[in-house]
Amino acid sequence: MRVLIIGGGGMVGQKLAGRLAKDGMLAGKPISELVLHDIVSPDTPEAGFPITTLTGDISQQSETERVAVLKPDVIFHLASIVSGEAERDFDKGWDVNTRGMWHLLEALRTAGTGYRPRLVFSSSIAVFGAPFPEAIPDDFFTTPLTSYGAQKAINELLIGDYSRKGFIDGISIRLPTVCVRPGKANLAASSFFSGIIREPLNGKEAILPVPDTVRHWHASPRAAAGFLTHAASLDTSLLKERRALTMPGLSCTVAEQIEALREIAGEDAVKLIRRQPDEEIMAIVKNWPENFEARRATELGFKAETDFRDIIRIYIEEDLDGGRAFSATAVADRERS
Amino acid sequence: MRVLIIGGGGMVGQKLAGRLAKDGMLAGKPISELVLHDIVSPDTPEAGFPITTLTGDISQQSETERVAVLKPDVIFHLASIVSGEAERDFDKGWDVNTRGMWHLLEALRTAGTGYRPRLVFSSSIAVFGAPFPEAIPDDFFTTPLTSYGAQKAINELLIGDYSRKGFIDGISIRLPTVCVRPGKANLAASSFFSGIIREPLNGKEAILPVPDTVRHWHASPRAAAGFLTHAASLDTSLLKERRALTMPGLSCTVAEQIEALREIAGEDAVKLIRRQPDEEIMAIVKNWPENFEARRATELGFKAETDFRDIIRIYIEEDLDGGRAFSATAVADRERS
Repeated sequence: MRVLIIGGGGMVGQKLAGRLAKDGMLAGKPISELVLHDIVSPDTPEAGFPITTLTGDISQQSETERVAVLKPDVIFHLASIVSGEAERDFDKGWDVNTRGMWHLLEALRTAGTGYRPRLVFSSSIAVFGAPFPEAIPDDFFTTPLTSYGAQKAINELLIGDYSRKGFIDGISIRLPTVCVRPGKANLAASSFFSGIIREPLNGKEAILPVPDTVRHWHASPRAAAGFLTHAASLDTSLLKERRALTMPGLSCTVAEQIEALREIAGEDAVKLIRRQPDEEIMAIVKNWPENFEARRATELGFKAETDFRDIIRIYIEEDLDGGRAFSATAVADRERS
Repeated sequence: MRVLIIGGGGMVGQKLAGRLAKDGMLAGKPISELVLHDIVSPDTPEAGFPITTLTGDISQQSETERVAVLKPDVIFHLASIVSGEAERDFDKGWDVNTRGMWHLLEALRTAGTGYRPRLVFSSSIAVFGAPFPEAIPDDFFTTPLTSYGAQKAINELLIGDYSRKGFIDGISIRLPTVCVRPGKANLAASSFFSGIIREPLNGKEAILPVPDTVRHWHASPRAAAGFLTHAASLDTSLLKERRALTMPGLSCTVAEQIEALREIAGEDAVKLIRRQPDEEIMAIVKNWPENFEARRATELGFKAETDFRDIIRIYIEEDLDGGRAFSATAVADRERS
């Protein structure tokens, strides 16, 4: 089968590509080709099948037509203008995130008779807006408080209707905040959730801009890649036209994150976290979801971590020091050295 | 203030125009001009202010720009491809119902500095899809089972985000099934809810295609016009960025409708209802909502009928025999004659 990842150069796209390269299979079938599309040329992992890269602006109708004529069997759509940028640049956010998705759906619909690809869309918990119940149920309404969230919620509705009409076989999965993100800190307000783990493990200072009572919803990059491959493999008739699913995750406080870091990497690592309250970030974070029921996704076999220590261990295994296998013991050794 | 009704020629648009003509005021201010826009030229009521009619295709960007330059203070957007047609003609439904709304929002956003009109959008309970809880709460998710429902749900999200960003001051109100619709039966699957009341009151036979245990959600055309004017007058800061509201209505069974008809117009009227089960209509109706909580809208002062007899009386007063005041006594007199 031919697989396309739109946004294949991003962090989750790269994790997914690595997973597909390792598995060699998707939805029980061997992968014959993987196409990675992004605005700049993505890195390609070693794989037992050919990997092609394509670069272009997926918000353009012509670009969506260019990928649709490839008739991929499975399309992962991960490309997105992120929350902060979509809020600052209204036109760019709507163009890329929603007009682009609509162009793609039209291109797929008109790509040829009988063509009905599986489309897996990475939606977001940003479709929800405060105030929230203690744990958000699967049937909670989508009242986004950002343009990004509105764009994701609209895409879910478009994918639902194009699927119901038989033009595609789509599924939208709402990812938790992905943690621990490898690489450098970015400007996202959520960046510190990863930073307070990643930086100390790399012997660097991390800034904590919120109180440690803040609770949030996490999953590892490995779990995110697993959600995506599971969504590509799922019997979508089980969704009964409710094709947007909140993924399972781990609800924990910053204090619990820090305690997990202490257990794995010791007190010296924890000492590298510097508390520096930031009113602006606190104001944003207080409107974010803290916890979900995610019953439907769990029943459908989607799996996330249940212990934040596992999330840290996955970062250490996959990404610390460029991804060499780095055991908790090795961290402890380094701490002692 | 200048008021625009898009879809001013439709049944609800005409009821609203009549109400505005009668009131002469909206949101506490005198109306200086009413513009009725539709695809064919709308009828105009007698009024103490000038009424202009405009005709055109509101799905076209140029047409939305044409109405935006008028800078109406309040815009009622009631125009829509109806459910059945949007399901049969996919492109037409999406073009008129959603691309048209998006063009309008862009036209309003770019119409001039400081312009921020109140936009009242007639959404629908079709944003919801079965299965349902016994009474649908305000925070229930929107999982439409028709393209029409998806289009309305997307418009709600667009209006929410354009409002949050300060480009418009919008509100989406989800109307119950409007009953008793005046005029002739139409091809909508819901047509019989009005037909079983309207036809007998006019001495004609009506077909009932479903069992009389079917429960549905109703409001009169007068209540619908009242929802719209109330939405135009509301302090939208009370909505707290949750700008889509399920309107109150009356949940009752077909048996209760018939009993109300019996009380008002007698047994001879009821005898004109012929039971003729229609599998196709039953299959559609079983996916429709039966009852809502509608707490937020009720708390915000939106009012619907609470007794189906009142819904019948309103039809008799406003629409029977071309709208002459027709009392229940008069009906009874006619029944006896």
